[in-house]
Amino acid sequence: MPPTLTAARAPARGGIDAHLMERLFKTRARSLALTAHLSDADQAVQSMPDASPAKWHLAHTTWFFEAFLLRDHLPGYAPFDERYFYLFNSYYEHEGERHPRPQRGMITRPGAEEVRAYRAHVDERLEQLASSVSGKAAALVAERIELGINHEEQHQELLLTDILHLFAQNPLNPAYAQGTPKSGPQGAAEADWRGFDGGIVRVGHEKTGFAYDNEGPAHDALVRPFRLSERLVTNGEWLEFMEDGGYGTATLWLSDGWATVKAEGWRAPGYWRERDGEWRQKSLWGLQPVEDAAPVCHVSYYEADAFAHWAGKRLATEFEWELASADLPETGNTVGTGQLRPLPAGHPDGGARQMFGDLWEWTSSPYAPYPGFKPAQGAIGEYNGKFMCNQMVLRGGSCTTPDGHVRRSYRNFFYPHQRWQFMGLRLAEDG
Amino acid sequence: MPPTLTAARAPARGGIDAHLMERLFKTRARSLALTAHLSDADQAVQSMPDASPAKWHLAHTTWFFEAFLLRDHLPGYAPFDERYFYLFNSYYEHEGERHPRPQRGMITRPGAEEVRAYRAHVDERLEQLASSVSGKAAALVAERIELGINHEEQHQELLLTDILHLFAQNPLNPAYAQGTPKSGPQGAAEADWRGFDGGIVRVGHEKTGFAYDNEGPAHDALVRPFRLSERLVTNGEWLEFMEDGGYGTATLWLSDGWATVKAEGWRAPGYWRERDGEWRQKSLWGLQPVEDAAPVCHVSYYEADAFAHWAGKRLATEFEWELASADLPETGNTVGTGQLRPLPAGHPDGGARQMFGDLWEWTSSPYAPYPGFKPAQGAIGEYNGKFMCNQMVLRGGSCTTPDGHVRRSYRNFFYPHQRWQFMGLRLAEDG
Amino acid sequence: MPPTLTAARAPARGGIDAHLMERLFKTRARSLALTAHLSDADQAVQSMPDASPAKWHLAHTTWFFEAFLLRDHLPGYAPFDERYFYLFNSYYEHEGERHPRPQRGMITRPGAEEVRAYRAHVDERLEQLASSVSGKAAALVAERIELGINHEEQHQELLLTDILHLFAQNPLNPAYAQGTPKSGPQGAAEADWRGFDGGIVRVGHEKTGFAYDNEGPAHDALVRPFRLSERLVTNGEWLEFMEDGGYGTATLWLSDGWATVKAEGWRAPGYWRERDGEWRQKSLWGLQPVEDAAPVCHVSYYEADAFAHWAGKRLATEFEWELASADLPETGNTVGTGQLRPLPAGHPDGGARQMFGDLWEWTSSPYAPYPGFKPAQGAIGEYNGKFMCNQMVLRGGSCTTPDGHVRRSYRNFFYPHQRWQFMGLRLAEDG
Amino acid sequence: MPPTLTAARAPARGGIDAHLMERLFKTRARSLALTAHLSDADQAVQSMPDASPAKWHLAHTTWFFEAFLLRDHLPGYAPFDERYFYLFNSYYEHEGERHPRPQRGMITRPGAEEVRAYRAHVDERLEQLASSVSGKAAALVAERIELGINHEEQHQELLLTDILHLFAQNPLNPAYAQGTPKSGPQGAAEADWRGFDGGIVRVGHEKTGFAYDNEGPAHDALVRPFRLSERLVTNGEWLEFMEDGGYGTATLWLSDGWATVKAEGWRAPGYWRERDGEWRQKSLWGLQPVEDAAPVCHVSYYEADAFAHWAGKRLATEFEWELASADLPETGNTVGTGQLRPLPAGHPDGGARQMFGDLWEWTSSPYAPYPGFKPAQGAIGEYNGKFMCNQMVLRGGSCTTPDGHVRRSYRNFFYPHQRWQFMGLRLAEDG
Repeated sequence: MPPTLTAARAPARGGIDAHLMERLFKTRARSLALTAHLSDADQAVQSMPDASPAKWHLAHTTWFFEAFLLRDHLPGYAPFDERYFYLFNSYYEHEGERHPRPQRGMITRPGAEEVRAYRAHVDERLEQLASSVSGKAAALVAERIELGINHEEQHQELLLTDILHLFAQNPLNPAYAQGTPKSGPQGAAEADWRGFDGGIVRVGHEKTGFAYDNEGPAHDALVRPFRLSERLVTNGEWLEFMEDGGYGTATLWLSDGWATVKAEGWRAPGYWRERDGEWRQKSLWGLQPVEDAAPVCHVSYYEADAFAHWAGKRLATEFEWELASADLPETGNTVGTGQLRPLPAGHPDGGARQMFGDLWEWTSSPYAPYPGFKPAQGAIGEYNGKFMCNQMVLRGGSCTTPDGHVRRSYRNFFYPHQRWQFMGLRLAEDG
Repeated sequence: MPPTLTAARAPARGGIDAHLMERLFKTRARSLALTAHLSDADQAVQSMPDASPAKWHLAHTTWFFEAFLLRDHLPGYAPFDERYFYLFNSYYEHEGERHPRPQRGMITRPGAEEVRAYRAHVDERLEQLASSVSGKAAALVAERIELGINHEEQHQELLLTDILHLFAQNPLNPAYAQGTPKSGPQGAAEADWRGFDGGIVRVGHEKTGFAYDNEGPAHDALVRPFRLSERLVTNGEWLEFMEDGGYGTATLWLSDGWATVKAEGWRAPGYWRERDGEWRQKSLWGLQPVEDAAPVCHVSYYEADAFAHWAGKRLATEFEWELASADLPETGNTVGTGQLRPLPAGHPDGGARQMFGDLWEWTSSPYAPYPGFKPAQGAIGEYNGKFMCNQMVLRGGSCTTPDGHVRRSYRNFFYPHQRWQFMGLRLAEDG
Repeated sequence: MPPTLTAARAPARGGIDAHLMERLFKTRARSLALTAHLSDADQAVQSMPDASPAKWHLAHTTWFFEAFLLRDHLPGYAPFDERYFYLFNSYYEHEGERHPRPQRGMITRPGAEEVRAYRAHVDERLEQLASSVSGKAAALVAERIELGINHEEQHQELLLTDILHLFAQNPLNPAYAQGTPKSGPQGAAEADWRGFDGGIVRVGHEKTGFAYDNEGPAHDALVRPFRLSERLVTNGEWLEFMEDGGYGTATLWLSDGWATVKAEGWRAPGYWRERDGEWRQKSLWGLQPVEDAAPVCHVSYYEADAFAHWAGKRLATEFEWELASADLPETGNTVGTGQLRPLPAGHPDGGARQMFGDLWEWTSSPYAPYPGFKPAQGAIGEYNGKFMCNQMVLRGGSCTTPDGHVRRSYRNFFYPHQRWQFMGLRLAEDG
Repeated sequence: MPPTLTAARAPARGGIDAHLMERLFKTRARSLALTAHLSDADQAVQSMPDASPAKWHLAHTTWFFEAFLLRDHLPGYAPFDERYFYLFNSYYEHEGERHPRPQRGMITRPGAEEVRAYRAHVDERLEQLASSVSGKAAALVAERIELGINHEEQHQELLLTDILHLFAQNPLNPAYAQGTPKSGPQGAAEADWRGFDGGIVRVGHEKTGFAYDNEGPAHDALVRPFRLSERLVTNGEWLEFMEDGGYGTATLWLSDGWATVKAEGWRAPGYWRERDGEWRQKSLWGLQPVEDAAPVCHVSYYEADAFAHWAGKRLATEFEWELASADLPETGNTVGTGQLRPLPAGHPDGGARQMFGDLWEWTSSPYAPYPGFKPAQGAIGEYNGKFMCNQMVLRGGSCTTPDGHVRRSYRNFFYPHQRWQFMGLRLAEDG
């Protein structure tokens, strides 16, 4: 899990690069593979408004190609079901009215099988489009296909985090992953620290290769000297925070964070359960022991900030993180390792210094537009820009991120109270 | 739909009456038949806290036999899954902690198939119990089986109303029933009225045959002369009420009713949808035209009361209803007709004066204990008694009530704002 | 407190009986006296949507005479301020739009002094009206004045209960009453019980003297033999209930009651506060010790019902209560004693068997219309009828009820979760 | 309004600079003057959880001196009322438990007079302290007095905005200000634009004179070339936005902003009321016409951002604002003009380019710590730091800001949905 995929389709095509189409269909197949062992019900239920049913992810990523490609670019395109334009739009105001987000779990029909048929219908038309389009249109189509691949990869990650949330509501503790988790080396070493000089640094995406609009424009930023921990904060360290009364000490917290702690009754990371004085965590592998050496996961920004405060440190800014990752390969413990959980520092499946993979790392940077940012015209412009308020940037990808999806300039973003993603933290300090 | 059932099991058994066991297994089989064409997802989703997933109904009615019979009365009983005692208890405080009601839809596992295996497991043990029990214990067991049959019948009706609620959330308008609805005669006649003398009348259940505890003790009641309409209020009449501004005239409404109208934005019965000035209703047959002659359905007590006020009439008390139904057969358009919708007055599938079947009729009687009522000891005593506050009595059964389930003395009860059941009204006036 | 009042106005008047007008102005003066020592702020703040500011009570009772008498019956009547028709209407839909109930506390202006000027303006015009009206109109005017007096008396009681609620929010524990509470005899005797035969009894108001519409029509009711405690349940008994785990035992409670206990965190009657293991109660006399012998006060219907269940008894129906009070004087510890708190049984200021005064007694009767009840036409018809759903009847008056206000047939009503009124209970059982 | 103040106290004092003490008592006197014409009720009511009663502001600013100075630094200090430490703490966790914020309006006692006595008590002790303290302690005391002055000035502004909110709930439209508003010149000129070069600029407070901790450390920032409008956006421009469907066009809005528009039903700025197609606004001068040339006021960040989007511009960052104001005097239409409303550009009472005074200007900068920011130890450290999440920075002060209070480096902050302050916007664009 996730299973190996063989490219099911022939690569030769007319106007669109064969390699791109191969990547497209591999991505499409991987979405199906992720849900192959889930029941119709597993795929239909929505466990909170922030999460979506697995089936919805499968359908919405398909809608994306229908609404942004086939409808306008494949002559005579007949939709699988006209009503799906309404049903599977997520948040694109330009695309008209849509099914209300908190109601996504009411859609027991179309069932999982019908959604797969919908996917096949669209895949087939995408092949037709790829082989028939040419000239200037081909460039646009290729660009949209690239975006669609990346969009679907994002939803693959959400699908996994949302299914974890669903299963965590079930007192029977079902596991998403099959078998037992691969054993990992124990005992994270003491955290080493590395210093960085700062200065005027270039940040953001430089326009070679795909990136989301929110990663640009590339620009200069002034970064002060800083030091960064070489690894993520661990469960063991978090337990010290807890034992020291971290969740009960108002003065460690942001004001909104403290209000959240009290309103939600938080006293441990998300998915942690105590029984007989022992902590365990609900995970994609079911209910598992909390391992001291593994990175602490499912903590909100509020918790990350309070922990850093308690530790006498701070979180890094997104530009510090970007500078610190400058010379590292953009690989690590992403979904392809099959670990589906963050690993202790130094694990062979992990990336250098745990920078890529394992866990999305909260930064202290509010999610805001870069200087000169202009969203694209039309619906595509809604992809990122309209969320640039009230959220914080996370960097680096997680153990549920598709391989190759994350980049050094990649900006993920969530509200500071959210913690159902694979989120963790790394400490920083002034240099 | 629902399909004909053949008794799948041999009737001869030891200590328990064979006819009772046959009824038991017919009832059990009917529950399965009601859900045979529903998908795993259809059966798993909970569309509001008041409603439960179909699968939950199947499991909870099984839990009932496990918790109230097998666990205590079948020596060496090994439960199918020990955790189900927690998972499928509904509201019995005596039976300990339970899964929170609004979270019933989170249980995608066990899946529909596993719940069916659970049912088979319990059915088999019930057969064992029936053939092995004897003497005084047999009487108790028989009594509990009888209660369990009736309990399951109630949940069969709820299952249908809850699946309607779920499907009504789906903009694709799926139908529960298969095929097209049987056509019915059109044009309800003018409502005739019948007078009753009143006096000291005997009400409640007289202890011959099964009844719920809340139907007794039988006792004398003083009823004044009254007149009762010979049929239910129709859609056509309701449309007149709407056209006359019924939903916009505060002075027609109870104070709490008017607050509800405004808070919910009600302007028509439940499940009614307007398009291009035409009203249609979501039903077990999907989206259907509103037929003038059919009884108006899915109206709350607040609406029923406001309508009666508007019409210069009132609702009947539960004792008036009971007196008026005294000499009628307890049959009508219940689930066995396969109509699955209320029928116009005079339809051959309907009962005399629409008293039994078609729709539960709101009475003006608050649901309160009869004089001398004492709930049973233990969990069984929680069946009815603890709900005797804030709800109103409905009488007569509906088109989704199992055949033979309803009685003249039968007291159904719902909150005055609820309208997802098959509920309607009949007018009364002082005699 | 409340201070003695001297009739400030001459009694001789034209068309309206002088004695009625004297009662009117005494009542009007008493409202002012109740608030004489309250600050402008005390009179302005609304402490919850169910409660109203004292100043609002003073203004609304004045509006009542303006809207229902002066505007239509005093030729050339010029209102004090035209906008008050909107501002001080409570819930009369017939009288048009009104200021939203939860916003009553936003009205810092008009201030307390200006509201007193408004009252004086209206009082003066009422005198004019009384001396000028004659013939048939005089009868209607007299009727409305009688209703207005009773209406104002009701609001005098609410004013006291609402000021108690406001002061109870203040951690400084201000007292409404001045001085120290009169000491009372200690040690309520064991409760004696009295049996009643039942039969067909006449209930409701027989049309001699004033009564609200909801007290009629008088009619026959069938009452079974019953027994009634000779006194109210005491604090000492309630402490036993608490010590026995009453607030933690789900099976003692109505389902809605138990949900309320958990949602509100109830573990004692309203206004009780524990410090160092000792219970005290916020009262009109400030924070006072809980006296064992005094009747338990500020309990909801849910709590009263659970207590009765725990005690193996039940509450009386409203007709049982009416029958049991048949030969008693309608007097007791009402506001005129100046006690402003319920007294132990046998106290010289109390009425026979604590039936009248001390505390409103929860009955087991849902508040519903009597047979043949028809609300009056127009706004006056909204006085009682539209509340006949979801509430329970209370009987007998309280220590904050104006002297002479309560009657044997008087039906007070509140929601089963409410407890800020002076409410208590008396036990009953089948005879 | 506000009235001229004469320094009521002699300036000569021991250890503390006489000029500082004079400023202190002038500030203290000004708070009283602001409320001199308000009734006890006006000062007691809390109109929403975000706002506080005027009396609370008077008491809390006094508590500040008691808790942070007198208790620890005046030997033998006897508090006016020990319970006020609980009652009038705002949000300082270090200072222990406190009265819940949403309950501030329940405190009718102490009344307005008693709070004034409390203020006098503390003022007197502050004088004692000032004349008795010396040496090293004097420096700390002086620093705290300076902070207390600035703290009280902030609350003077909040007092005015909160009283406006309260009066805006009153359908009688009371005015806070007395008399009629001074007339102002009409017709704002076309907005001119001014370009700025950007580069590495020094921002933040350089430690000469008082500043809040959140204004430092001063540091370098990289600012790109930009252009800034020379005046604020006007009501006339806002009406164009409204007429162009601004409040109905989802694609103009941030996602959270659009959700707020729908949830709140916004269709105009705060306090605007439409009657007969004409817009008027509730203001400190009561209900007034909306003047085209005056700056639009009481708009949230969401609205400001949507407007800028609609206009094809953007908001300035806080550093752009700071750079643009570099050579301007820090004066303008602040509270001392007595205008109590934003003025059209070019008004003699206004500051250069409307940068200081008139309205707080929304910037596009999330409120975050400056590099190297460390909150002070203890309660004082809670003043600003713990709010550095989810809020946006506003710059420049408003018509309700005390004279001399605002600075070029001053960072005000509010949540993006809030609009009850005197908030407006100025447009910017890339240079």
